[in-house]
Amino acid sequence: MINSFPEASATEINEVMQRSLIAFHQYRNISSENKALFLETIANEIELLGDTLIDQAASETNLPPTRLIGERGRTTFQLRMFANMLREGSWVEASIDTAIPDKNPPKPDLRKLLIPLGPVVVFGASNFPFAYSTAGGDTASALAVGCSVVVKAHPAHAATSQMVNDAIQTAITKTKMPQYIFQHVHGSSFESGKTLVQHDATAAVGFTGSFAGGKALYDYAAARKNPIPVFSEMGSINPVVLFPDTLKINAASLAKQYAASITLGMGQFCTNPGLLIAIETDGLNLFIETLSEEIEKVIPANMLHAGIHSAYYKKMNDALTQKGVALIKQSSSKTENLQALPTIAKVSGEIFLQNNLLHEEVFGPYSLLVVCKNVDELIEVWKSVRGQLTTSLMGTDKDLEEYTSLIQIAETIAGRIVFNNVPTGVEVCPSMVHGGPFPASTDSRFTAVGINAAKRWVRPVCYQNCPQQLLPDELKNNNSKNIWRLLNNEWTKNDVKC
Amino acid sequence: MINSFPEASATEINEVMQRSLIAFHQYRNISSENKALFLETIANEIELLGDTLIDQAASETNLPPTRLIGERGRTTFQLRMFANMLREGSWVEASIDTAIPDKNPPKPDLRKLLIPLGPVVVFGASNFPFAYSTAGGDTASALAVGCSVVVKAHPAHAATSQMVNDAIQTAITKTKMPQYIFQHVHGSSFESGKTLVQHDATAAVGFTGSFAGGKALYDYAAARKNPIPVFSEMGSINPVVLFPDTLKINAASLAKQYAASITLGMGQFCTNPGLLIAIETDGLNLFIETLSEEIEKVIPANMLHAGIHSAYYKKMNDALTQKGVALIKQSSSKTENLQALPTIAKVSGEIFLQNNLLHEEVFGPYSLLVVCKNVDELIEVWKSVRGQLTTSLMGTDKDLEEYTSLIQIAETIAGRIVFNNVPTGVEVCPSMVHGGPFPASTDSRFTAVGINAAKRWVRPVCYQNCPQQLLPDELKNNNSKNIWRLLNNEWTKNDVKC
Repeated sequence: MINSFPEASATEINEVMQRSLIAFHQYRNISSENKALFLETIANEIELLGDTLIDQAASETNLPPTRLIGERGRTTFQLRMFANMLREGSWVEASIDTAIPDKNPPKPDLRKLLIPLGPVVVFGASNFPFAYSTAGGDTASALAVGCSVVVKAHPAHAATSQMVNDAIQTAITKTKMPQYIFQHVHGSSFESGKTLVQHDATAAVGFTGSFAGGKALYDYAAARKNPIPVFSEMGSINPVVLFPDTLKINAASLAKQYAASITLGMGQFCTNPGLLIAIETDGLNLFIETLSEEIEKVIPANMLHAGIHSAYYKKMNDALTQKGVALIKQSSSKTENLQALPTIAKVSGEIFLQNNLLHEEVFGPYSLLVVCKNVDELIEVWKSVRGQLTTSLMGTDKDLEEYTSLIQIAETIAGRIVFNNVPTGVEVCPSMVHGGPFPASTDSRFTAVGINAAKRWVRPVCYQNCPQQLLPDELKNNNSKNIWRLLNNEWTKNDVKC
Repeated sequence: MINSFPEASATEINEVMQRSLIAFHQYRNISSENKALFLETIANEIELLGDTLIDQAASETNLPPTRLIGERGRTTFQLRMFANMLREGSWVEASIDTAIPDKNPPKPDLRKLLIPLGPVVVFGASNFPFAYSTAGGDTASALAVGCSVVVKAHPAHAATSQMVNDAIQTAITKTKMPQYIFQHVHGSSFESGKTLVQHDATAAVGFTGSFAGGKALYDYAAARKNPIPVFSEMGSINPVVLFPDTLKINAASLAKQYAASITLGMGQFCTNPGLLIAIETDGLNLFIETLSEEIEKVIPANMLHAGIHSAYYKKMNDALTQKGVALIKQSSSKTENLQALPTIAKVSGEIFLQNNLLHEEVFGPYSLLVVCKNVDELIEVWKSVRGQLTTSLMGTDKDLEEYTSLIQIAETIAGRIVFNNVPTGVEVCPSMVHGGPFPASTDSRFTAVGINAAKRWVRPVCYQNCPQQLLPDELKNNNSKNIWRLLNNEWTKNDVKC
């Protein structure tokens, strides 16, 4: 992908970050209602771009318009969700402990709430030009809590990013927000990423993409004189365990379900099921047979860009040429341009355990089936994987009853445990966890999706013996915002009685 | 301080961490009630040590028995507080979004709660042999959420630490806990700290102490192949702003209050007010005069150990010999052994802004008064400090009304903002924030004191379409634990209706 946007220089980045810090201090004092209106106006302005935006994104990413329309809906839904979070108001986790003057020593009045960290730098994902990019979840959650945001446009969809930036700028003007609370820079070098992450004014970083990119940003931040939090979501192989009884009963339907999940969007999802684990049985053989038939039916589509296309073939060929790895099925379609062939391979549990290369993500419509001798080996294989966004258990009640201890293994592996379902499809709701132990993310204590994504950009501050008139409204005796507060250890919406 | 405990070898540390990981997987499945009993039994066993423990700690730390008795009370209070947190149960932040099958695509059933990270390594503080050490807040909060703990005994009070460890081991036996959920190693080298932090089994680190120590552990963790969270609380200079009107009215009483705070416990608190900031006025002159008289009255006591004593004099002399720094008052008492002389110095705002050495912590009964020409310079000086645990505003209603924008500066500087009070004294309650922007701590998003300290050692996990019988009790339809849950976006203790 070539685009005509010049790379931001170090001088430009410095100016951008300086402006971002000034804008942050203006923006954080703006009312929740006005911030909510701002987020909603961004959503409206994105929708007003209509087909022009979809066409631009399709031309840059090769993603089909229907998929992009769905993703745009997800993006505007997220912006409105955070607007609702602001209006409801309890997200600040207000906590009040009133004074006990006759305690020895006297207990002071202490009140706490969450405040924004400062300017957040966001690096979007190539595979989600809207929902995990310019006005995506990182940006929306950071703006919601009162942070200013600087987005580095993904070079693979820089013009799409520019259009979304323009929509946000219009929203800034229409809602009279400080001009520089959102800024947009272009660049495709690691150097510009480093400059952004290491700038004095930068308070936190959000990233979605490759392990190499996400880990580099983490390292840049850790090397600062004053380290800052980095939430990098770096994808995973999302192991799926197929239990014997369900394979005995449902082999064919499971194969159809998983063929669809493996090849959905040409496998270009961080929750793509890249690893299937099962014990050798007749059911598994039927599963393999049906999976092969289904893979053959998939019509290849173009991948996002040439870099991802060539990485897919390189990583896949590396895997396929390892000792003991056998091809199960590669679609026999003819391909052209950036089209990718869906591919399934298999390997024994023993070999998988010995070869770390097979544990690496092959980003695309590829999945490796690990065939285990018995349940002990299956457990070994499953436990051997690194941190994951998701892990899935496909089993009948009988299976799950027999192997209950496996659920505890699942908890240590992943941020989300899926039962009898595919890992692709990430619902935006408070109970979603999109994150997981390293290297799925750089901090398993947070999620990148859902309202809790906002918790990455805030810190608590405590006011001791603060006069009422100086307290934030959320902490005053009178609970004018009608939010949930922890008052002397009890959750309540009541006022503080004096 | 010399102690007879041999340094743990790399081999021993490896064994300790391996055992900790196995114990973690056993411990996390133990009921909340039994974990609560365990924490309470630790508190009881510590109390049963009686004067023997106080005497041992006094002999190792030079802290007076009354202070140590108070600190022991704080320690057992914390253990019981976390037991109460477990019994109440809402700390897991349970969240339930029920399925909407007829949505397109169908919305699955998603349920989330917090689970423990794994083995936590704790490095205690020299100045708090109980409350921030072996069975202190880090250990208590980590054990509460289901983590196993390995404490590296502080070499300056290793025998005290060993006694507390013995009490915990007794509690493990009495409450039939897995043997290795708590382990204790000795060592005084950076090398043993590095081995502990970089061990594969280590999931997180808690530290209280010097900047050099805390930052080194942070760097070790960041250099791992799989980085882990480190919460280092590294102290600060806790700037205090004295406003003109309160100095005009209350100079003498303020001086008395602050002389006591500066010299409390020989200044060996991370919340010690090391920096006073004021505008030159007649009131300030009276404040200085009274402060000098009060400092003279303080009877010097021994510092914690020889290393801290010599560091105090070295750091203080470094500060006092800087250009433009003038001694206001140093106690004229004769000192012996490890006694420290309380000392107050002053410098102009202009020079303070130019000299970073003056921004560094001098751990001990030392405070630097920055005398500013006007409010603009005061703001410059205040904003120039690095991240702090606390900052204090001493002002009348008139002062605070006049300078309201200063409160927003305070928010960006510190984790806790104190009004007309001293920063020493850290109340243990949910609204407390003991943490702050770097270098006060390595992650300003968390606190080391209060029930929220537990949030450092947990991560969310989401269960998608999980059968009822496999869900943790906290997420089942029937809310048998009667905890607060976010059910389809509403906080409630209700059951889920099916």
